[in-house]
Amino acid sequence: MSGVIVTGPPKADAKDVEAIAGHGTATVHEAMGRTGLLGTRLRPIQQGVRVAGTAVTVLSWPGDNLMIHAAVEQCGEGDLLVVTTTSPSTDGMFGELFATALQRRGVRGLVINAGIRDTAELRGMGFPAWSAAVSPQGTVKATGGSVNVPVVLGGQIVRPGDVILADDDGVVCVPREDAREVAEASEARERKEALARAAFLEGELGLDRYGLRETLVRLGVTYTTYDEYAGGGAAP
Amino acid sequence: MSGVIVTGPPKADAKDVEAIAGHGTATVHEAMGRTGLLGTRLRPIQQGVRVAGTAVTVLSWPGDNLMIHAAVEQCGEGDLLVVTTTSPSTDGMFGELFATALQRRGVRGLVINAGIRDTAELRGMGFPAWSAAVSPQGTVKATGGSVNVPVVLGGQIVRPGDVILADDDGVVCVPREDAREVAEASEARERKEALARAAFLEGELGLDRYGLRETLVRLGVTYTTYDEYAGGGAAP
Amino acid sequence: MSGVIVTGPPKADAKDVEAIAGHGTATVHEAMGRTGLLGTRLRPIQQGVRVAGTAVTVLSWPGDNLMIHAAVEQCGEGDLLVVTTTSPSTDGMFGELFATALQRRGVRGLVINAGIRDTAELRGMGFPAWSAAVSPQGTVKATGGSVNVPVVLGGQIVRPGDVILADDDGVVCVPREDAREVAEASEARERKEALARAAFLEGELGLDRYGLRETLVRLGVTYTTYDEYAGGGAAP
Amino acid sequence: MSGVIVTGPPKADAKDVEAIAGHGTATVHEAMGRTGLLGTRLRPIQQGVRVAGTAVTVLSWPGDNLMIHAAVEQCGEGDLLVVTTTSPSTDGMFGELFATALQRRGVRGLVINAGIRDTAELRGMGFPAWSAAVSPQGTVKATGGSVNVPVVLGGQIVRPGDVILADDDGVVCVPREDAREVAEASEARERKEALARAAFLEGELGLDRYGLRETLVRLGVTYTTYDEYAGGGAAP
Amino acid sequence: MSGVIVTGPPKADAKDVEAIAGHGTATVHEAMGRTGLLGTRLRPIQQGVRVAGTAVTVLSWPGDNLMIHAAVEQCGEGDLLVVTTTSPSTDGMFGELFATALQRRGVRGLVINAGIRDTAELRGMGFPAWSAAVSPQGTVKATGGSVNVPVVLGGQIVRPGDVILADDDGVVCVPREDAREVAEASEARERKEALARAAFLEGELGLDRYGLRETLVRLGVTYTTYDEYAGGGAAP
Amino acid sequence: MSGVIVTGPPKADAKDVEAIAGHGTATVHEAMGRTGLLGTRLRPIQQGVRVAGTAVTVLSWPGDNLMIHAAVEQCGEGDLLVVTTTSPSTDGMFGELFATALQRRGVRGLVINAGIRDTAELRGMGFPAWSAAVSPQGTVKATGGSVNVPVVLGGQIVRPGDVILADDDGVVCVPREDAREVAEASEARERKEALARAAFLEGELGLDRYGLRETLVRLGVTYTTYDEYAGGGAAP
Repeated sequence: MSGVIVTGPPKADAKDVEAIAGHGTATVHEAMGRTGLLGTRLRPIQQGVRVAGTAVTVLSWPGDNLMIHAAVEQCGEGDLLVVTTTSPSTDGMFGELFATALQRRGVRGLVINAGIRDTAELRGMGFPAWSAAVSPQGTVKATGGSVNVPVVLGGQIVRPGDVILADDDGVVCVPREDAREVAEASEARERKEALARAAFLEGELGLDRYGLRETLVRLGVTYTTYDEYAGGGAAP
Repeated sequence: MSGVIVTGPPKADAKDVEAIAGHGTATVHEAMGRTGLLGTRLRPIQQGVRVAGTAVTVLSWPGDNLMIHAAVEQCGEGDLLVVTTTSPSTDGMFGELFATALQRRGVRGLVINAGIRDTAELRGMGFPAWSAAVSPQGTVKATGGSVNVPVVLGGQIVRPGDVILADDDGVVCVPREDAREVAEASEARERKEALARAAFLEGELGLDRYGLRETLVRLGVTYTTYDEYAGGGAAP
Repeated sequence: MSGVIVTGPPKADAKDVEAIAGHGTATVHEAMGRTGLLGTRLRPIQQGVRVAGTAVTVLSWPGDNLMIHAAVEQCGEGDLLVVTTTSPSTDGMFGELFATALQRRGVRGLVINAGIRDTAELRGMGFPAWSAAVSPQGTVKATGGSVNVPVVLGGQIVRPGDVILADDDGVVCVPREDAREVAEASEARERKEALARAAFLEGELGLDRYGLRETLVRLGVTYTTYDEYAGGGAAP
Repeated sequence: MSGVIVTGPPKADAKDVEAIAGHGTATVHEAMGRTGLLGTRLRPIQQGVRVAGTAVTVLSWPGDNLMIHAAVEQCGEGDLLVVTTTSPSTDGMFGELFATALQRRGVRGLVINAGIRDTAELRGMGFPAWSAAVSPQGTVKATGGSVNVPVVLGGQIVRPGDVILADDDGVVCVPREDAREVAEASEARERKEALARAAFLEGELGLDRYGLRETLVRLGVTYTTYDEYAGGGAAP
Repeated sequence: MSGVIVTGPPKADAKDVEAIAGHGTATVHEAMGRTGLLGTRLRPIQQGVRVAGTAVTVLSWPGDNLMIHAAVEQCGEGDLLVVTTTSPSTDGMFGELFATALQRRGVRGLVINAGIRDTAELRGMGFPAWSAAVSPQGTVKATGGSVNVPVVLGGQIVRPGDVILADDDGVVCVPREDAREVAEASEARERKEALARAAFLEGELGLDRYGLRETLVRLGVTYTTYDEYAGGGAAP
Repeated sequence: MSGVIVTGPPKADAKDVEAIAGHGTATVHEAMGRTGLLGTRLRPIQQGVRVAGTAVTVLSWPGDNLMIHAAVEQCGEGDLLVVTTTSPSTDGMFGELFATALQRRGVRGLVINAGIRDTAELRGMGFPAWSAAVSPQGTVKATGGSVNVPVVLGGQIVRPGDVILADDDGVVCVPREDAREVAEASEARERKEALARAAFLEGELGLDRYGLRETLVRLGVTYTTYDEYAGGGAAP
């Protein structure tokens, strides 16, 4: 596979990335109309870290990390490396040496739809990562691929320069041109949730707050006492 | 699907729940004759927490958390929410707002055979949860379901009012009418294990303590030296 | 199944085991020519622990831990217990009582291609373990098996006396007769990596350090600006 | 595990079983209010066969088929054997010799939440089977279990005497006391579907037949031309 | 989720679709530079069928087939329906009634990243389908979605009007604007493969035909006799 | 990875291979003391075919079929190609052109722990195959590997010259030096099974034939009528 390394892609504005980083993935996903998730397969190797950055994308052959080397040169301050393979792989394509090079360039972290290794070292140096697998398995540098082309991870398209937000829940991608709008919608959603939180702390029910009693009636969901229910022969 | 919300189910006695909470899931499962487990798919989002409560059960449509809202009203002091879906789902049906409402009502935690989100916040507020997935994916409130009917999670039937015990190893369900007996049997088992632990610390072998040397002989398991074994051509 | 318990197998030299324990699984796997891994299914129940020991191997029937009892007697200072089953199983074959007996005998830890239980207790007592599952499910002692015969875990053959090294990334097996050579090769690799780390910290690129620019040219990977790329209709 | 063999359980009426056998699993599942499915893991070893029978249930230890031997004696004309294990197993617990014995007794087929073997022979002798796995792995006869107790397969409770219906789509369980009602509801549903089929053949749309255009409007789903859509920058 | 139904998308030329249908998925995938595959999860419900058509895409909520009803109206001669869900689902969203309506409109088949039912009937009526699961589980019509927007299945973007080719090996998507070029490249590849086939039938080796002996030498792969190899202690 | 191509390994005797081919995998696995299986992941692409041959083994890098080219030259009459990869892969490494070359050389079939393509063509030409996946994904020829070294598939060691037997149930490996003994033991087992089959056809029960009633008693399994059981509150 001959590939292409695309230089100088447009990127989301750093201020918008910062604003998005102030919210969790669940909030941002909701603010985007419930879109943008990279599925449930990418799990963090650390706990309690939230990070956002602009995507530098890598498409690699399975078992081969040549294109990650090519991608390092394309990475700069505020970026986040996003790696996938042309077919499923669990190999440990990325480890502490790559993280050292990237951290020096100001890269915020890694999202990889394959394996990662040196996880203890990565945690130790504070380089956050989300991966599909953990594996010491090494890789070769023998087959071409691409950098900064659109890639797909977890059913989600990621383009270079898009905003990647990752936390303990998972990973979400915000298209670079929507970054400001999504940051604002996330802020609005958090304000709304703060009101709901306060109401719930005072004992209000979601059934009442969101008008769901009517929904239950419309859907034919009924209330019954345990005795009536059990008497009907469907003893719970 | 029209469903039913059952009110006022019988519950295990609080004192028995407390007694069961004094043991781990492995002990209680053994004390029940090796029954009651909810499989290996439900994993804790935190470490080092053990909790027991009486089940309030929820049966939801996949991608829909309407019935969790209905269930909140049915929850009270000492309960533990148990949620499953009519077909497999990884969606994040439950998050920090639900936990806020439940914590105020004295609910002990959550066991959900689907996805959960806001996991960092849940850990922060001390609301323990066991789930089949972690996912920021949001859900709708469009389809009916049931509350406090018998449900199945991990091959195990859970009825409202049954005792749910969960720790780092997994989740076990104790039928509400067996709670006292199981608490006592667990206590007895722990005493027996304490004796075994002491014996093992002094160097006794399980082979001797449990009479297993005879079992090995009966089954035809033989001893051989490495040299004899390797000499036979089956070099290990 | 009648089986065999092999006594007195040869073991890797303790000094070589110690030397191997000074490196991570990724390093040792690379030093062995990228071999020796036990796959990605065996995960640690703790974080931040690296351990090495000589294998005492167990082949058990699924749902049956009789042969682990037989294996305890064969374990001594510096050993590490390696357990697999004749067909896939997630049952909790191993718990705190076994760990108590093994710890007293100087055993370094457990690698099990099945389930484990009492994980909180194991972490508490500092007995490290890597397993394919966590499950409170108990087992019987009814069917024979073998101890100290060659077994296969994760596509890797493990013989008694081989060196097992395990850390946060996974588990690797070093054949007992290669232990010294692998220890030395690992040391050499670490020295080489230290040089690379220093170079990367000063900003050198892997592309230059490893001569990969030529590789990219040979493979037909080309560079293009975003504008040229997007102008070609393949807007990233 | 000591178990119990329950003799003489009540069974669904043979005429109702016959009536249910006249419909597919999808129809019967719908007629039951979308309940009763045994999940998607149980797949047929043959194609184009639909069968119904009354359940004789077996709960076995993994890797052990002793209780299937005990169950054979409990099986008679019109029954269908339903087997599960106390924890997940893929072992080939059932083969041609069991099928020979069962076929002679008038048993209709097998549903097993574990492995099966001799599949070519089973197809050859016309003994239909649905299993979670195909495996030549043999089993022992060393640990107890139960016959004709309620069991859970694929999240569904199956009691002895319940009606099991299986076809190319999967397996459904009809509680024995609901058999007549479900047979009638299935018949009604087929009549309704025949009308829909005829209408669709004449070109009517589900959108019109089921009043779904109003649903789309209520949900805010809008129509747009491709040119408008693409012009908005969201080029499909 | 409010969605959008896009009408009148551009489509690949029927003649090019026809030409692509003359080749297998492996050939077309190779002719596209080894791109375009929809992964390995989508399996045919029949054997020996190859079909190509222009995609009408559907994005549905899990457990909900409302948008398939909306999509039927957008389908015409030569189309092929492509369905996915916003999160993973195995529910049987599509069955014989939908196939009846689509077949009347000249639709060629179905590719669905979820469940399918009535598989025996679909085979009987000659409506080919590729799905991620087979399940009788029924669905609701309660939540919005979209028709003819770009969707992702198996890591591959599919836009309305793109060419979908499916056979026993899997499913491939050809961008509508590349259809002619890919058809020609596939034809060229088949001619080249015919020459290779003839050569192999006469005994030529791939090692010689593709110059791979040099590759082996360059990579350091060596030849050795079994006796030398076994003599070195690495007895195979 | 530099590798090695081993020439001229010893092979099982053709007459013994022939004899083994007269039995199914379940029979041979039992005759070997319930060993030798290659797990449940390798499934046939055809139905009703049983084949045996002597293994030519291949160890390839994932996504790379270079070493299969090297292996073709090592294959001859009566061989069966056995391929695995250094880490898990679903890529379609093998297709109709390889089968053409191998069939000409008298090779009996393929067992591959990765993907396969051109499955319709392989069925058409009568070249039987068992694989872990079906995928049109193409591969490169860029990284070294080995031929005729011991490999592991499905937890089973396969050495060059060992006998591979495959049928609808799965795949089993017989060590080359045990071939005669296993053939004879299989023959003996079939004779024994024929007697059991005849007895079962006349109505004898396994409970009696194998003396299992005593086993049930010893294990504490008891009989009870449904009425007693249900009366005890455990209504089945």
